[in-house]
Amino acid sequence: MLYVTRKMHFSAAHRLHNPALSDDENLGIFDKCNNPHGHGHNYILEVTVCGKPNPATGYVIDLKKLKKIIDDEIITKVDHKHLNFDVGFLESVIPTVENLAVAFWNILYTKIKEGKLYKITLFETETSFVEYYGE
Amino acid sequence: MLYVTRKMHFSAAHRLHNPALSDDENLGIFDKCNNPHGHGHNYILEVTVCGKPNPATGYVIDLKKLKKIIDDEIITKVDHKHLNFDVGFLESVIPTVENLAVAFWNILYTKIKEGKLYKITLFETETSFVEYYGE
Amino acid sequence: MLYVTRKMHFSAAHRLHNPALSDDENLGIFDKCNNPHGHGHNYILEVTVCGKPNPATGYVIDLKKLKKIIDDEIITKVDHKHLNFDVGFLESVIPTVENLAVAFWNILYTKIKEGKLYKITLFETETSFVEYYGE
Amino acid sequence: MLYVTRKMHFSAAHRLHNPALSDDENLGIFDKCNNPHGHGHNYILEVTVCGKPNPATGYVIDLKKLKKIIDDEIITKVDHKHLNFDVGFLESVIPTVENLAVAFWNILYTKIKEGKLYKITLFETETSFVEYYGE
Amino acid sequence: MLYVTRKMHFSAAHRLHNPALSDDENLGIFDKCNNPHGHGHNYILEVTVCGKPNPATGYVIDLKKLKKIIDDEIITKVDHKHLNFDVGFLESVIPTVENLAVAFWNILYTKIKEGKLYKITLFETETSFVEYYGE
Amino acid sequence: MLYVTRKMHFSAAHRLHNPALSDDENLGIFDKCNNPHGHGHNYILEVTVCGKPNPATGYVIDLKKLKKIIDDEIITKVDHKHLNFDVGFLESVIPTVENLAVAFWNILYTKIKEGKLYKITLFETETSFVEYYGE
Repeated sequence: MLYVTRKMHFSAAHRLHNPALSDDENLGIFDKCNNPHGHGHNYILEVTVCGKPNPATGYVIDLKKLKKIIDDEIITKVDHKHLNFDVGFLESVIPTVENLAVAFWNILYTKIKEGKLYKITLFETETSFVEYYGE
Repeated sequence: MLYVTRKMHFSAAHRLHNPALSDDENLGIFDKCNNPHGHGHNYILEVTVCGKPNPATGYVIDLKKLKKIIDDEIITKVDHKHLNFDVGFLESVIPTVENLAVAFWNILYTKIKEGKLYKITLFETETSFVEYYGE
Repeated sequence: MLYVTRKMHFSAAHRLHNPALSDDENLGIFDKCNNPHGHGHNYILEVTVCGKPNPATGYVIDLKKLKKIIDDEIITKVDHKHLNFDVGFLESVIPTVENLAVAFWNILYTKIKEGKLYKITLFETETSFVEYYGE
Repeated sequence: MLYVTRKMHFSAAHRLHNPALSDDENLGIFDKCNNPHGHGHNYILEVTVCGKPNPATGYVIDLKKLKKIIDDEIITKVDHKHLNFDVGFLESVIPTVENLAVAFWNILYTKIKEGKLYKITLFETETSFVEYYGE
Repeated sequence: MLYVTRKMHFSAAHRLHNPALSDDENLGIFDKCNNPHGHGHNYILEVTVCGKPNPATGYVIDLKKLKKIIDDEIITKVDHKHLNFDVGFLESVIPTVENLAVAFWNILYTKIKEGKLYKITLFETETSFVEYYGE
Repeated sequence: MLYVTRKMHFSAAHRLHNPALSDDENLGIFDKCNNPHGHGHNYILEVTVCGKPNPATGYVIDLKKLKKIIDDEIITKVDHKHLNFDVGFLESVIPTVENLAVAFWNILYTKIKEGKLYKITLFETETSFVEYYGE
């Protein structure tokens, strides 16, 4: 079993805010991440697929194909967007790095047909990131 | 003459839009950077100061002091903010990476009293950055 | 289950030396790392916590809180210190990157109360690092 | 159990081509990676060894020794070489990053006698890498 | 005056060999870089343009346009190629990092019409790079 | 004119302390960098040489030769050392990053005979560095 990973980038704005809570509670929990106009990040997304190499090609999945899937399903929908307002599949999701990772997993899981999606790694900044294995 | 540099980070949202132009012109010029709700970045700011080392300390400027100046004058005002709405000194500035670098220079130039401000380097992403020497 | 990680930095001196062995044996084993006055590193410490996101916040643990715990319990005690002389919890520990990772685990394990400590990753240099999962 | 890793670099040329397929099939599968004269990469190889630290040294394996093993067994044989023509142990292997990782595992597995080889990580570029655990 | 930079990547094979010298002289000068089948690198190319920001846009040059010029004029011609055999504008050039930087300058200089080409920076590896200012 | 750079690493301990000042003055100026047992860093040293490429080789200076000069003259003398006690050419120098850069310039300037030493860049950490051009 081999684990192959493609790293991608996108830039987006977001605001951490739970509409079920009061403004004071939101500020208490999310602090500067609750700024009303939002703030933003250069996210780094790593998608890891596992499987056995095809003997004819030596590939688990052609990383150029994996790049195209991630581009089509995720990057074009979130890059240069505000994650609270502009992304259909994030409606009513608080866009923490944890919730984004799970949302990306749920989309990519059914689209990857060579090998099997193994892990989503998402960096919000150089110093903060999350990993999700689908359960 | 020695050139000492302190690197800092901040995360912010912005939108590229010139209110003097039509919506179509704005979209034509700024493309996906014109997204109405904005998008965002993890900016990297490098501030370079030049001077001769003080013989008693071996410092051009104590980099811990330089960090404090940059924190107080810039980072606390732009980090986790929307650059189009939340920052006094950017009012009526189109927040391109070029215009931000000039605005940061104008603020820091008078605040640095050991050595002399020499250069502002500002990365919008890992692959795009600007340098400004004050003229 | 999600795995969230916060990366931190500290700078410290250390010397690899086992007082139970002769000077010749120490030099034979530790080579240039046995230099009597010590040498030093910019360490990178990554702390990974696992858990389920709180539905009200979308956080496993607020990474700003995790940063504060690591700062209070580890960074303030080792940053700009000599690990052989200045750190109470490292007394009589040979400060290899392996032993440091275990010592940091033992301190952090009881301090993290949202989610559960999952992994300590410690880089001594850009090319050498260790991972520890607590057993 | 601790996991220690040494990162190394090498530069090599390669061409992805399966002689059992037609030229058209090869171009269809490998696209620009099938360029007849080959192309090249700066590979990053990470070798992870697991074990318990020796109480006398605090080492799982001395990372200077691990570096020497990787240098002698792998780096000197592939650095500044064409992987399709110049490397005995890659004869008749399609040099995808997957197949290279497996080939490196098979060589290193028997040469590491302190601790146990746990993982091979191989980066072909900054954005594409593979991990292999030996099965 | 502002200096804006776009960073790009390409992967290529090359061989350092001067056909005017004997094989022994070539091996003496170029050592392992003279390997007959060639070797390869992931190059990083940074293109710096200087100018004044256009007041209507805040741009010296739109970095998306600069990226397109570099892609069309350089990257598509060298990426996944062997620099000694596959690139028209490198015919009879010894593909050292120095000569590549000059060749890229000569092509880009006339193609950049907003601002002025100021510098080419080319990394052959993470530890070796060259800068060229056109004279 | 081309500017070629070789990047190198070393790890060392140091203490910032001026024996001409009182202990209180030293602590006031150097703060945590004045810790009596010292602390340490992974330094990154970049050496830039300028010149015209030799038409027979395409090299300003063979970067493998430049690496050997830096290794012999600097790295072997400072790596895994305490800069206040173990390095002849730093005797009575306060080892700030500024003073180290000047000391390295003075040694390398006469040793580089192909091209001309142009710049020393020295990183003390990822966020703090100094540049020196010899005057």
